[in-house]
Amino acid sequence: MEKFRQFVAFLLAALLMGILSIVTVLIWVLNWRGGLAWDAGLLEFNWHPVLSTTGFIVLNGFALIIYRLPWTWNLSKPLMKNIHAFLNITTFTLMVISLVAVFDFHNSKKIPNMYSLHSWVGLAAIIMYTLQIVLGLCIFLLPFTPMYIKTFYMSIHVFAGLFIFGMGIIAAEMGITEKLIFTLRSGSNVTLSYSQSPPEAILVNALGIFILVFGGYIFWIATQPEWKRPLEQVTDNTNTEEGSTLNKTNTSAEIGMDCALENTPRLRQINLDDVDQRATF
Amino acid sequence: MEKFRQFVAFLLAALLMGILSIVTVLIWVLNWRGGLAWDAGLLEFNWHPVLSTTGFIVLNGFALIIYRLPWTWNLSKPLMKNIHAFLNITTFTLMVISLVAVFDFHNSKKIPNMYSLHSWVGLAAIIMYTLQIVLGLCIFLLPFTPMYIKTFYMSIHVFAGLFIFGMGIIAAEMGITEKLIFTLRSGSNVTLSYSQSPPEAILVNALGIFILVFGGYIFWIATQPEWKRPLEQVTDNTNTEEGSTLNKTNTSAEIGMDCALENTPRLRQINLDDVDQRATF
Repeated sequence: MEKFRQFVAFLLAALLMGILSIVTVLIWVLNWRGGLAWDAGLLEFNWHPVLSTTGFIVLNGFALIIYRLPWTWNLSKPLMKNIHAFLNITTFTLMVISLVAVFDFHNSKKIPNMYSLHSWVGLAAIIMYTLQIVLGLCIFLLPFTPMYIKTFYMSIHVFAGLFIFGMGIIAAEMGITEKLIFTLRSGSNVTLSYSQSPPEAILVNALGIFILVFGGYIFWIATQPEWKRPLEQVTDNTNTEEGSTLNKTNTSAEIGMDCALENTPRLRQINLDDVDQRATF
Repeated sequence: MEKFRQFVAFLLAALLMGILSIVTVLIWVLNWRGGLAWDAGLLEFNWHPVLSTTGFIVLNGFALIIYRLPWTWNLSKPLMKNIHAFLNITTFTLMVISLVAVFDFHNSKKIPNMYSLHSWVGLAAIIMYTLQIVLGLCIFLLPFTPMYIKTFYMSIHVFAGLFIFGMGIIAAEMGITEKLIFTLRSGSNVTLSYSQSPPEAILVNALGIFILVFGGYIFWIATQPEWKRPLEQVTDNTNTEEGSTLNKTNTSAEIGMDCALENTPRLRQINLDDVDQRATF
């Protein structure tokens, strides 16, 4: 119960930071940067920070920890995998629109594309994210993928997910830095430059901090072994002792995969009546 | 042996990226930014990227994985803790000089301090790093700290170390972005601006990628359960069977602490003759 309370506290903190990030980026573009439109100009560019924060940071972050929500442990693994895939494909869609917005803006203003470190890291992150989704779908959702491939790929998939999320945070922080320097410079139509810390600079720096702290909570939640979705165990009704040997339907490969990050299987008792809906993978 | 080879491959890759990062930042400041000096001007500023890359990125990164080097597993835990502390205190010293350089430069040029997101995240990282060192010394090196405090703090210490390292990478990427925009702008004495991708921009963007990839290798090495330093086990000579029960000198708190991140103790046989030099904590 204490573990559950701690999990909920961290989850609520992450939720608060995620909401704060989205609200702050919206206040930024709506209040200071003229709002949102699809005009190949600055208002179209504004979709870029809004969609990237909402998608690649917040939605991606929650997709990473979706298996750890205790309320989902009664749902079958295939259903959870579909929810995880859906969240990631939604994020991918938002990022495609986000990229189109910034390329459209650059092209219409004759600004070169892909010259900055922000663009290098950001595009690399999205390409790796795309590869991660394609490989994830092929390996974990196609029914005929051999188990040894699933087992081998699992720890790479989990690490890559966290690393790409980290790259997204890095790209976001660089994007904020770039945009504030370009926008709040002496000579442009602003009263105070970035170095004079006008309210807009403070607000958008705060956005950078919210994103960083959100990332910290997500990394914490995603890496605590005791918050991992319990391993599904199939037992017959005559043997309900906790921690008993695994039923034949759980192969050692499955255990290896579920335990790839923590090495210790924690077992969940499932009645044989439920087996049909609960087959892992 | 296969695991050992994989570890060495990742370690060499991290070493290559670390060396590439330091060489690239040196080429940048020596070849394009006028070199290094202590003149309260731009040449003094140049110490900031050089010392930050060498200290907070490369040295800090290797300090994080020092316990995992198999060649050190014959060395006593107290000695390893002292090496770990020494590397981190060296990094801290480099970062103090790095900060003095940038504050000196700002003050002499009447540039405000602490206005950018880079400075917010960077200073927060260094403050947290300082706290991490102080707490680490008090909790893990003072002999009279109660074991339950060590056990409780261990997983926080490990997570915080990785998170602060991540903050360092984020600060470095933002610092590179800032410096390239400020230096390679039209109107200053450069032939091509940042957006026209001159060789300096390509080189320094590459520095950002080397730092990111170095970070990826360090995170991978630091989080693979099978590369963790084996738990020290004391057995008498009459009981040398692998995986046997722990000797009385290993308390459950010690096991909990050593296994905080992975939940599974892997045991190392130590002859009682060696006990004196090998007491844990």
